[in-house]
Amino acid sequence: MKTKLFVALMLMTGTAMGQKLLTLEDVMWSGNNYYNLAPENKFTAWWGNTPLETTPDGVKNLVTGESLVTVERLNEIAGEKIVRSGHYITFPYGKQTIAQVQNGEKRIQIDWAAGEVVWSQPIPRGAANQDFNQTSKHLAYTIEGNLYVTTAEGKTLEVSKDGSTDGSADIVYGQSVHRDEFGITKGTFWSPDGQRLAFYRMDQSMVAGYPQVDISQRIASVTMDKYPMAGETSHQVKVGIFDVATQKVTWLQLAGAPDDYHTNLSWAPDGKRLYVFELNRDQNDMRLVAYDAETGAKCNQLLQERHEKYVEPLHGLEFLPWDASKAIMQSQSDGYNHLYLLDVTTGQCEQLTAGQWVVQDFLGFNTKSKSLLYLGNESDPRRSCIYCLNLKTRRTTLLGADDGVHAAKLSEDGTMLIDNYSSPTVPRSVNLISTQPTRGRRPNLVSNILTASDPWQDKGYKIPEITSGSIKAADGVTDLYYRMVKPVDFDPAKKYPTVVYVYGGPHAHNVDARWRWSMRGWEAYMATKGYLLFILDNRGSEWRGREFEQVTFRHLGEEEMKDQLEGVKFLKSLPYVDAGRMGVHGWSYGGFMTTNLMCSYPDVFKVGVAGGPVIDWKYYEVMYGERYMDTPEQNPEGYERCSLLGKAKNLKGRLQIIFGYNDPTCVPQHTLSFLRACEDAGTQPDLFTYPGDGHNMFGRDQIHLHERITRYFDDYLK
Amino acid sequence: MKTKLFVALMLMTGTAMGQKLLTLEDVMWSGNNYYNLAPENKFTAWWGNTPLETTPDGVKNLVTGESLVTVERLNEIAGEKIVRSGHYITFPYGKQTIAQVQNGEKRIQIDWAAGEVVWSQPIPRGAANQDFNQTSKHLAYTIEGNLYVTTAEGKTLEVSKDGSTDGSADIVYGQSVHRDEFGITKGTFWSPDGQRLAFYRMDQSMVAGYPQVDISQRIASVTMDKYPMAGETSHQVKVGIFDVATQKVTWLQLAGAPDDYHTNLSWAPDGKRLYVFELNRDQNDMRLVAYDAETGAKCNQLLQERHEKYVEPLHGLEFLPWDASKAIMQSQSDGYNHLYLLDVTTGQCEQLTAGQWVVQDFLGFNTKSKSLLYLGNESDPRRSCIYCLNLKTRRTTLLGADDGVHAAKLSEDGTMLIDNYSSPTVPRSVNLISTQPTRGRRPNLVSNILTASDPWQDKGYKIPEITSGSIKAADGVTDLYYRMVKPVDFDPAKKYPTVVYVYGGPHAHNVDARWRWSMRGWEAYMATKGYLLFILDNRGSEWRGREFEQVTFRHLGEEEMKDQLEGVKFLKSLPYVDAGRMGVHGWSYGGFMTTNLMCSYPDVFKVGVAGGPVIDWKYYEVMYGERYMDTPEQNPEGYERCSLLGKAKNLKGRLQIIFGYNDPTCVPQHTLSFLRACEDAGTQPDLFTYPGDGHNMFGRDQIHLHERITRYFDDYLK
Repeated sequence: MKTKLFVALMLMTGTAMGQKLLTLEDVMWSGNNYYNLAPENKFTAWWGNTPLETTPDGVKNLVTGESLVTVERLNEIAGEKIVRSGHYITFPYGKQTIAQVQNGEKRIQIDWAAGEVVWSQPIPRGAANQDFNQTSKHLAYTIEGNLYVTTAEGKTLEVSKDGSTDGSADIVYGQSVHRDEFGITKGTFWSPDGQRLAFYRMDQSMVAGYPQVDISQRIASVTMDKYPMAGETSHQVKVGIFDVATQKVTWLQLAGAPDDYHTNLSWAPDGKRLYVFELNRDQNDMRLVAYDAETGAKCNQLLQERHEKYVEPLHGLEFLPWDASKAIMQSQSDGYNHLYLLDVTTGQCEQLTAGQWVVQDFLGFNTKSKSLLYLGNESDPRRSCIYCLNLKTRRTTLLGADDGVHAAKLSEDGTMLIDNYSSPTVPRSVNLISTQPTRGRRPNLVSNILTASDPWQDKGYKIPEITSGSIKAADGVTDLYYRMVKPVDFDPAKKYPTVVYVYGGPHAHNVDARWRWSMRGWEAYMATKGYLLFILDNRGSEWRGREFEQVTFRHLGEEEMKDQLEGVKFLKSLPYVDAGRMGVHGWSYGGFMTTNLMCSYPDVFKVGVAGGPVIDWKYYEVMYGERYMDTPEQNPEGYERCSLLGKAKNLKGRLQIIFGYNDPTCVPQHTLSFLRACEDAGTQPDLFTYPGDGHNMFGRDQIHLHERITRYFDDYLK
Repeated sequence: MKTKLFVALMLMTGTAMGQKLLTLEDVMWSGNNYYNLAPENKFTAWWGNTPLETTPDGVKNLVTGESLVTVERLNEIAGEKIVRSGHYITFPYGKQTIAQVQNGEKRIQIDWAAGEVVWSQPIPRGAANQDFNQTSKHLAYTIEGNLYVTTAEGKTLEVSKDGSTDGSADIVYGQSVHRDEFGITKGTFWSPDGQRLAFYRMDQSMVAGYPQVDISQRIASVTMDKYPMAGETSHQVKVGIFDVATQKVTWLQLAGAPDDYHTNLSWAPDGKRLYVFELNRDQNDMRLVAYDAETGAKCNQLLQERHEKYVEPLHGLEFLPWDASKAIMQSQSDGYNHLYLLDVTTGQCEQLTAGQWVVQDFLGFNTKSKSLLYLGNESDPRRSCIYCLNLKTRRTTLLGADDGVHAAKLSEDGTMLIDNYSSPTVPRSVNLISTQPTRGRRPNLVSNILTASDPWQDKGYKIPEITSGSIKAADGVTDLYYRMVKPVDFDPAKKYPTVVYVYGGPHAHNVDARWRWSMRGWEAYMATKGYLLFILDNRGSEWRGREFEQVTFRHLGEEEMKDQLEGVKFLKSLPYVDAGRMGVHGWSYGGFMTTNLMCSYPDVFKVGVAGGPVIDWKYYEVMYGERYMDTPEQNPEGYERCSLLGKAKNLKGRLQIIFGYNDPTCVPQHTLSFLRACEDAGTQPDLFTYPGDGHNMFGRDQIHLHERITRYFDDYLK
């Protein structure tokens, strides 16, 4: 439907029209944008069912452009400069002229029509992990290891008052647990009415500390960071429910082992039950259990899912707004992540979507048409498109373009959404879309809000040619997708030094149908310096289904490398790739892959740069590590084979390892153990570190890092 | 006298006669030798006044070659394999056929003539810092932080029993204190009769710990290494005297501040007094104080020495064997280190040696002629020759060759010595020399035991041309000595990449009159790879007198670099030096110099490799740091100017910094802070580290390291 627009844009790309060469400063991203060269964007929000555009000065109607309220006006009413930008205002009540804002000291609601502050609540100094319930207006937060609630009336209640509230790292309340695995991102969960707060309590007193040294002090100091390594003693998590009215804590009567995982806490709409996805430490036996919120007693087990490799619950229940007995659930039990309709009274589970593709995200409901919205990659594994599934008709409708990678924000009743997407040839497009059933032409597009032009072209930069395609995996059957970035001023008669950029681990991908196939800024920069870049999502990566992912089970790295070698084979078949000058670069799992490739295929890759690598999975943490590798005790042969310590002796080419000196994720022991192994074996890797940085570098360090990575390839590959 | 021999050897060197090229394995030294290419040596010992040669199999007369006793025979008598080599046997009593040996479990004396073990003493498991008194046969030792004595009869006494014997690092008994500065190398001092033991007690509970991370554990662990940084709270030292008979500890009644330095403990010959060189923390006020060994009370102050920069006592008293009221003392109070005769009853002090040269070592006495023996560099600052000063006639006699660097071992009565030396053209010469006064020709040479040939030539290696000469320091007056190593197959018409090797700090030198001017193995290796090496001892280094050393006071690095730049000026005047390819390398203080030169003169040096560098003196320890820099509070401007953190932004060339990951001397905070400064400033040093290693690398790591250093110059300078 929007084909014409795409064609028009496509004609403008693919060739280098400008003359300016990119600099690292031009392309270094914060987040995942191209910094100075990011396409224009719109910042949007919903006020009930009214779409808004937020700007630094205020908020206006997204379609009409009519001003709703200005920052200046809100500050005038507040009598202080509490609002710094329109981007930070929320409109919690769709039918009231109420703006909600906050600063470090308080959260307030301003009625801009009445011209008065209608509600205010203090925020204690140092309050972290703030979780505000819009219905009750109670605020949960943590200070150090403790958990508190400040009520709508401003009264502060201490939740963690069982005698262990010493603020130490040993016992932690109300924070994310299990190292953010299993979809866990936070530690507090308000009941829908905001009168009960479910929360995590994590006892990690029995977990070994990893020494992190802070050299920025007058005399370097150390912090022991609780880090449970694979096979070692792990932390123990309990779930409590705090009743604001009675100020009493009720603990869920969890069965199972103390180091089981309790994930994706979900409240029943009436707040009477709490649903928990429970998983054994071995991660192969998952149960969905309902608990009585009043007593903490187990009500019933709704579901059980087992798998010989592993089961990984990642999403909670999403109850139908019109039927409290049914909830949407996600599972990849049929081999692909799909949506299911679970009857929580009977435990019956009905599959809603199916096929050899995955649901990437559940977006919400259209309560009018009784539909649900999701992102899926049915039309192409690289895409993420918006679909509407009508639960009455069971008809699925594509909303918006059948290309690209979309993000959607639903209005209050879900009858409209704002779609913000890009595709390989569309830098960005923002559209207002109706989610209502229709049979008309271009039925769902209400309004095209923005079609961004190509800022690189606008500013006269040379743009490399970027393509995507597929090759067969090492299994000879599976399609793998790649992105190729050709050097600027590409001459097919020349031979170019080629760098493979790799990640390769689970829950991630590098190639998708975003603008320019998601080319990273650094790849463009390298292309301006005369390199060819190649990026292949091997088996083990995300959005391709369970079998594709789990082929790596108990021997991480091996299948992934085989697939990358297929990529190399493909590259070598291209006349313009210089097979004698192949490099590889990756970070984290990609650092593991890079180091592994350099040591496993020393005659293929001449130069590698590995960032924050895993070297031996026994130094990685319990949750992620044991899911894919089991424990060192269960799988000694796999740990041995997949360790890079034994491969250190094979290193022939130039390999630089770079790590954050205070990396809490891939702790420095990985890199340092590899160095020691190389030193003992007489091989010579190179090294760099960023003191004070963690697993990744940001800001100025990010640019410094990429200057460094580039220089290494310039030194040894060019 | 031995001129003929020297000329003959000289004719054989200086040109590359062989064809084989050195490898790193060929030249990597343990200690300071050339590993496989070290000249032949003799291992010698004294049995009273009989010179011995020790071999793995036994011991023989050094002159006659007659066997004294074999290892086999001793083990036979002992009834066990307690002796592993003739090198480990001592002969404590000149007139008795007694061999003393030990293993990890015991120390025994064997009468080989009588064929029996005549004495035996157990050595407790874990006994460290063993200090055995040959007269009483009592053994002092430490286990963890505690001090013990095992008597000659095998009874174990606990010395450190004042309630603080918890074995923690907080309170340490009987070990070296003040971080081995001020000539301190141990913490126990037996009275001559071995009945009283003076010892140090160091309380470092108030000293900050530096976190040292051990990555060799299953999960990295940390040790807090007590490390007092300049200007910070330092440890407090007391001196106790343990009476073996009464088992009582008497503490010296030390006056002064608790962090004063108590150095060079010396016993009076009758064991009634203990002499202590005491120094204030500011190190500019030194007093020699006598204490009563019975009561611990101060008897009298014998001497006081003050200097506006610093005073540094490095040597204890050496009492005349024939006059207990007089002792030899060393001091550089007249500007050069010389010997003095101190009357301990009157405090009168008579200067024995004088001149613009230094006494490098006091060797001992000839008790027959009432002479003393010392090493001095009177004839050339680079030399270390043996002199005999007759205290009756006050006549000084040179013993042995007036060239080279000598080491001497005196016989029991000092009438003979074994001289082991090398000179620029003599690989090694071992001679038996009489120290008795004489007027004849070649008076002192008793016997030439060994004249080693050149093993490099013997084995057919190419040898670079090695020369030494002098240039003027940056002050325009002072002579500085250099060593130059030319590339093998040197062609004066070519231009060579040139590497300056540098140390530059106090208490050390690089250029002396040892074989081949002390060329290090790596320099020879670099010469085989086509580099020219240049090594210059700048002002601030040792053996040139006080003013030469103290010119750096309060601004370490500055004068030293000016002198090195004079070296560069000289190099640039040579047609075969490629001024566009100048590199620099150094370790420790030399790492500080290297980093400093790279950042202070970014257009002079293209490539540098700095090892274990000091980056900011505030991270260095109290004793050494404050001597040369005062405290950061006293000298803020000096600390600021001499810090390399502010210079990080100037880095232009390629600089690799290498450090021992567990360096307890120049703690990793130096290097890591510099990295952070470079990252913030956008400059790009390179880095490497050896996990588990300290301030220096040994064994296999030493070779790995030099392969690495060489590769860096190959990559960027060649």
